[in-house]
Amino acid sequence: MPKVVDHDQRRREIVEALWHIASTRGLEGVSLGEVATAAGVSKGLVQHYFGTRDQLLMHATGYLRERVEQRIAARVAAAPDSASGTLRAVLVALLPTDDDSRTESLVANAFLVRAHNDPVLTARFREGTSQVRNALTAAIGAAQRDGDLRADLDPAREADLLLALVSGLGEALLLGHHTPDAAVALLDHHLGRLATAGGPGFGHDG
Amino acid sequence: MPKVVDHDQRRREIVEALWHIASTRGLEGVSLGEVATAAGVSKGLVQHYFGTRDQLLMHATGYLRERVEQRIAARVAAAPDSASGTLRAVLVALLPTDDDSRTESLVANAFLVRAHNDPVLTARFREGTSQVRNALTAAIGAAQRDGDLRADLDPAREADLLLALVSGLGEALLLGHHTPDAAVALLDHHLGRLATAGGPGFGHDG
Repeated sequence: MPKVVDHDQRRREIVEALWHIASTRGLEGVSLGEVATAAGVSKGLVQHYFGTRDQLLMHATGYLRERVEQRIAARVAAAPDSASGTLRAVLVALLPTDDDSRTESLVANAFLVRAHNDPVLTARFREGTSQVRNALTAAIGAAQRDGDLRADLDPAREADLLLALVSGLGEALLLGHHTPDAAVALLDHHLGRLATAGGPGFGHDG
Repeated sequence: MPKVVDHDQRRREIVEALWHIASTRGLEGVSLGEVATAAGVSKGLVQHYFGTRDQLLMHATGYLRERVEQRIAARVAAAPDSASGTLRAVLVALLPTDDDSRTESLVANAFLVRAHNDPVLTARFREGTSQVRNALTAAIGAAQRDGDLRADLDPAREADLLLALVSGLGEALLLGHHTPDAAVALLDHHLGRLATAGGPGFGHDG
């Protein structure tokens, strides 16, 4: 009986090998040969599945996005069923507060460094950021209509400020400048300033 | 007459060669030989002046700090002579809003990526961050005593939030998600929320 090759499994192993390299040493100078060695397969097989190194990297950014989206969805599902609960859940999901999200942040960082010199990657990051920004803007608008966030806020501007804040808090977490609890408390303090007097106590009652 | 060698000049050229490499392709896998080639000198000369690669990198972080400190000092000198003016000047100086500060941010980014796997570099970054954080905390406290910032703020907490905000805005600037003017306007909007009713109009009257 011929051996049955699980192509999906092999492709996943190769992407996860690249993932491991990105999170431990970055992506600078990474080669298909290095990825193949890390995955325990031949360089020819990596080329067969993914083509060029740039195509493999692009595939890996898709994998990164999928994982981040899954983490956001899981946080939102566990959060209070309100626009303000969703808003906070998305923001907390973007912080590297555990091993998985920390690895994802390191991988994202490695891609960010490459993106500074790569217009295709830059465009992809901009697209991902736009999606999150739009989701935050919508959640802020909905929370205003619920009476949870102040009516005088400009949702798009607040979304930009919140995105910058979680990005900076994420970097501080990776460097060990804050504990995860302290970073979430800082985020909650900022959110508390956006809330109405009778609105949600972010980080207190949810 | 023997040729007079300007050692300081040569050392500076070597550090600037490393600087150029860091800002264009990052520091991953950088070797003394590569730095020597970029500086147009021999590898032996780089070793003579700096010793090991790690010693050269450490020297370059000192150069980075000097340049950032000079930029902060210049911004503070040009700002309104008040604690709130100083606070805003330090924060704006930390944003990559022109070619020089953009290069510095890219170099800092390259060191940050290394720092994730290097305890000595991590400690150095933490020390640098602590200094800025202390300066911001002091400026916030002084601006509160001047009646420019709200008395109910916790200066250390606001300093952490501001540091995270400029860090995240800086990353967004490097990726072209915001123009420099838009990033400064977002910072000013945040600062405006910390001001007293009769306090400074950040970004308006200074």
